[in-house]
Amino acid sequence: MSKHKVIYDTDPGVDDAMALVFQALHPDIELLGLTSVFGNATIDTTTRNARFLAGRFAAGVPVAQGAAAPLRRVAPEPLARIHGDNGLGNLAFDAAVAAPLDARPAHRFIIDTVRAHPGEVTLLAVGPLTNLALALADDPLIASLVKQAVIMGGAFGIDGVLGNVTPAAEANILGDPDAADIVLGAAWPVAIVGLDVTQPTIMSQDYLASLRERGGAAGQFIWDVSRHYEAFHEQSAQLKGIYVHDSSAVAYLLAPQLYTTRSGPVRVLTEGIAVGQTIQKPATLPVPAPDWDGRPACEVCIGVDVAGMLALYERTICGSPRST
Amino acid sequence: MSKHKVIYDTDPGVDDAMALVFQALHPDIELLGLTSVFGNATIDTTTRNARFLAGRFAAGVPVAQGAAAPLRRVAPEPLARIHGDNGLGNLAFDAAVAAPLDARPAHRFIIDTVRAHPGEVTLLAVGPLTNLALALADDPLIASLVKQAVIMGGAFGIDGVLGNVTPAAEANILGDPDAADIVLGAAWPVAIVGLDVTQPTIMSQDYLASLRERGGAAGQFIWDVSRHYEAFHEQSAQLKGIYVHDSSAVAYLLAPQLYTTRSGPVRVLTEGIAVGQTIQKPATLPVPAPDWDGRPACEVCIGVDVAGMLALYERTICGSPRST
Repeated sequence: MSKHKVIYDTDPGVDDAMALVFQALHPDIELLGLTSVFGNATIDTTTRNARFLAGRFAAGVPVAQGAAAPLRRVAPEPLARIHGDNGLGNLAFDAAVAAPLDARPAHRFIIDTVRAHPGEVTLLAVGPLTNLALALADDPLIASLVKQAVIMGGAFGIDGVLGNVTPAAEANILGDPDAADIVLGAAWPVAIVGLDVTQPTIMSQDYLASLRERGGAAGQFIWDVSRHYEAFHEQSAQLKGIYVHDSSAVAYLLAPQLYTTRSGPVRVLTEGIAVGQTIQKPATLPVPAPDWDGRPACEVCIGVDVAGMLALYERTICGSPRST
Repeated sequence: MSKHKVIYDTDPGVDDAMALVFQALHPDIELLGLTSVFGNATIDTTTRNARFLAGRFAAGVPVAQGAAAPLRRVAPEPLARIHGDNGLGNLAFDAAVAAPLDARPAHRFIIDTVRAHPGEVTLLAVGPLTNLALALADDPLIASLVKQAVIMGGAFGIDGVLGNVTPAAEANILGDPDAADIVLGAAWPVAIVGLDVTQPTIMSQDYLASLRERGGAAGQFIWDVSRHYEAFHEQSAQLKGIYVHDSSAVAYLLAPQLYTTRSGPVRVLTEGIAVGQTIQKPATLPVPAPDWDGRPACEVCIGVDVAGMLALYERTICGSPRST
């Protein structure tokens, strides 16, 4: 098969970094570019981190800097408690390996790249959706030229939670709810990989140690970059491991059969105490709903083969799964 | 054990009627009164139906008429498509058996009855929560005098749905979202029996036929009153049976061990496209949430022993479970 041509829209971020390594090492993915966005850290930090990640793991892949703030709100505080002060778990890295910065803003890079490969580009977006919304605003026709948008974000209650930063909102969507409502309502195929499937998918401390032992330099990097992140999970959720957020979006792209999905239009709440919540009207709900009806259906992940997902990641990093 | 002293706040409604028969026949429940509310039908219709149900199945139990409309909105359209034009599945009934009407409005009946039995009364509310909110407004101290409020309403996404009348709202809560936000935030113990557990609990056509064959006059009534309701389920949801909404609240009261619950404060959205949504902050969510924090915890049902619930209902109506 031909490779998935991917633009990785990202706010690195520890799990963003782990998902970048996943993409860089997987033979079925061709990275066309990284676009940075505010979110886990400031745009300066996420852009610097994206350049470092590209330089270290994806030589020759361009990086374009994106939005510093949401469309219509002030930028949220960086999540240093989760991702460390430098956005990469306080891991020191060599600035000399940084990839050069593309001259274009991220949304223009997206437009140009999509137009250069009509029908072929997957937008894999794992931060606030501002860059994608700006691209749509600047060139609405790209919606029909994108192969699909795979979004890590949102939550639908299936796993018992509607949010991780508020009772009703997941961090990426809350980062720019206005942009998210635009992006999820655009006429491109959208798949949503939310907390319903990313929080049940947990890399245990043993699993991460195995990546370090068997995954060479990439495995060592994944281990090193995830120390602060793992400590956060243990402290905040008493979890002996880490949720697999952004890499789950990569897994969905590579192996959608690992996920069960539900089809129907999705709205994002942009006001009120539940701002940032994602709400799907399932195709099976037999009532009219004017605020949903008429918008394109999104595929929302509602179930995951956890073992299959973890094996896919491990195979990609280590070349083979652990013998058990 | 002493009996549960219950005020049944209801908008009959087919499943309200089935839940009334359940309560009337169960030896552990002492019905102190029925209070009517708009909802499945107009207040005139639900009050008439409540009087008929009390007269037929709960002789001597008073009925008080409640709110005709939500606190701050216009009354919703009657759900004739679901409950029939007369609110009881178009079943003809004998008006001569109707219980007399208490002179007090429902909220005053609630206040007086709670104050007459401090610490002993369970409010079992299966319609819009207007009467309970009015009682709290008139006499806030009753919150500390009620044993518990068991609410059929809301949805939390666990079973994959957040609503049945909109993508985000269940009918009872949407009936009066302002009242619901007050009632779920009051300082009385609240248990919420929502779609998460009522839609997985299905009385099949065979189950209902067995009630008819083995349940005497009550079983025959349940069969007769549910014909229109069953046809609605088959037509709208391709379901060969009926969801067990209101009777699940009765089952929770009688046998809470049939349910797994999650603790945490609950808010109701009163504005926006998701008006009427119920959102809990689970006690396990490790983030501040000013719009939830400081409100009392509610117990939200998130799992149900379906077979156990159905056996309890059948034992109550028929005297014994079916041999299988």
